[in-house]
Amino acid sequence: MKRTTIKELHQKIGEEVMIKGWVESYRRLGAKMAFIILRERTGQTQIICHNPSETLSKQTVIEVVGTVKEEKQSKYNGIEVAASYNNIKVISKAPEELPVGTSNKTETTFTTELNYNALTLRSERRSNIFKIEAEVINAFREFMRYNEFTEIHSTKLVKEGLEGGGEMFEVNYFGEKSYLSQSPQFYKQMMVGVYERVFEVGKVYRAEGSNSNRHLSEYIGLDMEMGFINSVEEIMEMEENMLKYVFGVLASKLRREIEYFGVNIPHIGNIPRITYTEAIEMIEQKYGNVEGEGFNNEMEIQISEIIKEKCGEEFVFITKYPLSKRPFYTMPSEEEGCSESFELIYKGMEITTGGQRIHNYEQLVESLKTNGFNPKEYEKYLMSFKYGMPPHGGCGIGTERIVKQLLNLNTVEQASLVPRTKSRFV
Amino acid sequence: MKRTTIKELHQKIGEEVMIKGWVESYRRLGAKMAFIILRERTGQTQIICHNPSETLSKQTVIEVVGTVKEEKQSKYNGIEVAASYNNIKVISKAPEELPVGTSNKTETTFTTELNYNALTLRSERRSNIFKIEAEVINAFREFMRYNEFTEIHSTKLVKEGLEGGGEMFEVNYFGEKSYLSQSPQFYKQMMVGVYERVFEVGKVYRAEGSNSNRHLSEYIGLDMEMGFINSVEEIMEMEENMLKYVFGVLASKLRREIEYFGVNIPHIGNIPRITYTEAIEMIEQKYGNVEGEGFNNEMEIQISEIIKEKCGEEFVFITKYPLSKRPFYTMPSEEEGCSESFELIYKGMEITTGGQRIHNYEQLVESLKTNGFNPKEYEKYLMSFKYGMPPHGGCGIGTERIVKQLLNLNTVEQASLVPRTKSRFV
Repeated sequence: MKRTTIKELHQKIGEEVMIKGWVESYRRLGAKMAFIILRERTGQTQIICHNPSETLSKQTVIEVVGTVKEEKQSKYNGIEVAASYNNIKVISKAPEELPVGTSNKTETTFTTELNYNALTLRSERRSNIFKIEAEVINAFREFMRYNEFTEIHSTKLVKEGLEGGGEMFEVNYFGEKSYLSQSPQFYKQMMVGVYERVFEVGKVYRAEGSNSNRHLSEYIGLDMEMGFINSVEEIMEMEENMLKYVFGVLASKLRREIEYFGVNIPHIGNIPRITYTEAIEMIEQKYGNVEGEGFNNEMEIQISEIIKEKCGEEFVFITKYPLSKRPFYTMPSEEEGCSESFELIYKGMEITTGGQRIHNYEQLVESLKTNGFNPKEYEKYLMSFKYGMPPHGGCGIGTERIVKQLLNLNTVEQASLVPRTKSRFV
Repeated sequence: MKRTTIKELHQKIGEEVMIKGWVESYRRLGAKMAFIILRERTGQTQIICHNPSETLSKQTVIEVVGTVKEEKQSKYNGIEVAASYNNIKVISKAPEELPVGTSNKTETTFTTELNYNALTLRSERRSNIFKIEAEVINAFREFMRYNEFTEIHSTKLVKEGLEGGGEMFEVNYFGEKSYLSQSPQFYKQMMVGVYERVFEVGKVYRAEGSNSNRHLSEYIGLDMEMGFINSVEEIMEMEENMLKYVFGVLASKLRREIEYFGVNIPHIGNIPRITYTEAIEMIEQKYGNVEGEGFNNEMEIQISEIIKEKCGEEFVFITKYPLSKRPFYTMPSEEEGCSESFELIYKGMEITTGGQRIHNYEQLVESLKTNGFNPKEYEKYLMSFKYGMPPHGGCGIGTERIVKQLLNLNTVEQASLVPRTKSRFV
């Protein structure tokens, strides 16, 4: 008998079928009946089981032959499968007691969840997170491809110092020092010279401090870079349209999974674009004086609150970021000390850094020097610019941050399948 | 004036347009005319330029305002753009002499190509390779998603010994030893317990020897794993259908790019499945005695030739691989010494290893012991099996190998944007 998947059951009312999956729950109803909730890749269904002889423990893998019935009371698509206990075959038996609950009512610390990752990922809550993440990533790619971006897969093993050192993980490469890449920036720019518009979905490594609420040592970067722009505004427009598309896809495909977290999928209108200077003024007006340059975490939360109050938007672009806070390849603005770069803040957390880049060879060499680098060491990178580069720019997005913010998770770690932080390597 | 892309030109015959791109070639025709071939993301077109005052060097980035004309002689979609030299604006000037040709006639060694990567990737030949690779990867994902596989993104930073040591790159993780992952195998299996069917596209790291014809230190792995299989045959069937889909997509979208390499897109019929023992017999019959166990490179070429002669197929599955040559999680066959695992060989090169895995907890613990490992150290991995795992299996595919074999490239390095091998780190 061929297996029927749960989502196909409604086409087989009255028929005998064979279904397979994991026991999600088992409930005895008197001596002669039991209810089993079965889980597999296409969903869950209810099995009404006659003459049960023994309890089936949760997570046990079974094969069931039964008859599909309409049952208005059933939460599972108005369907249940009636089976005699004899027709249930145990494929893989789980122990009677699980070390940690996979039901969603159980209060479990995240550390415990990770200690039992293989088991707790099977919970509705955690499996939803990564289903949503997969869809965010796929929708990003779809949008990029539709807009004639070519996907690239650049190396994650780089030589020292390419981006001015910083917090990188060292790799022993056949006895030589190399590092895990902090960003595909240089390769994206190189490939703008080839395909004009490129994107990459890939791992990004940052040996940063231990603020595991927002930092991961390894995260999934969504990167894009586009040539022949007239200004940085086009990058923000592209990102805004991308986010509209991504959230649109989520709304149409995963509404149930997202609503599980008690959140709404944001409707993105026109994302406000305010300059860094304007943002600082707004924050100072409401929260008092700000010291130093650049946004800290608190300010990200503050500006989000202000914008939310003002126009109801959960996203805000902060433009004209101070040039001194930006890497050497950033295009300076006409306004002294400003740059053509931006951040996108979503519900109080930066999820994107982007901007226009310097495309003129001489200007880029100058900027390297001003920033204290030796252009000789950047020869390979500079080659793209020596041989014809159009005005261009792009941005890098942290996937786990989008997911964390969308679902109101406590930490960005919770949006990583096997999170790596300074304090955690499980 | 808004930019028109080259692929939109045919809709604008007789109109004035603004186009932008790189000078692919510049050819003077007498004193009053010049032909420019312009390249951008959607293609190439020909510009006929009146009253040129100076030569535009190759790779220079320009903006041109001109009139779209039908020109039957033009190789570029029967179209050309007529422009006065005054209406050509240089955006980014390339030097008169390029250090290496990007035209396809130039004979350049691969080392030289890599030394000038930013420039040589702009050649039709090299840019085609990575356009094709992007499409292979995307088609793989499309097929997987269509078949209800969920995409995962597992960590590439792992602890020592997880897969029994081997040739791994060591990473300094905040002062602690860790390694770059050799395979997402353990995470794929863990996620079978969650989503039943999963796939991953991600970097795989192998600190292997220097046979750069077939080994990369970093390659793009296409991995899949599926639960509730009846036998390993279903894995091969899934892969066969996936390949049919991928090559079908290539044929419909990138025929021109592939034909550039003078190759045909293979029509995949039913890929022959022969056992390891049968394969050895066939090889011995034709080429004489074989020593040792397992296939070497030469034998992969030999069996491909035999199969090609016999039934015209460029692919062949070698099944029932010797168990001793396979990792501890491999499902043993009923036949003594054999395993339910396979390789897929494409034109003389292995592009896939796959198979059914052990899903029974006790059997897996036994197998760990038999293979000399301590089950205690595999507790996290074993957890999936302790708490209910269905029969399952999967495979891992080397993207660069598929592309190399399809396009008859000399080495697998040529299918990597920034190749990493033992002898090469540029």
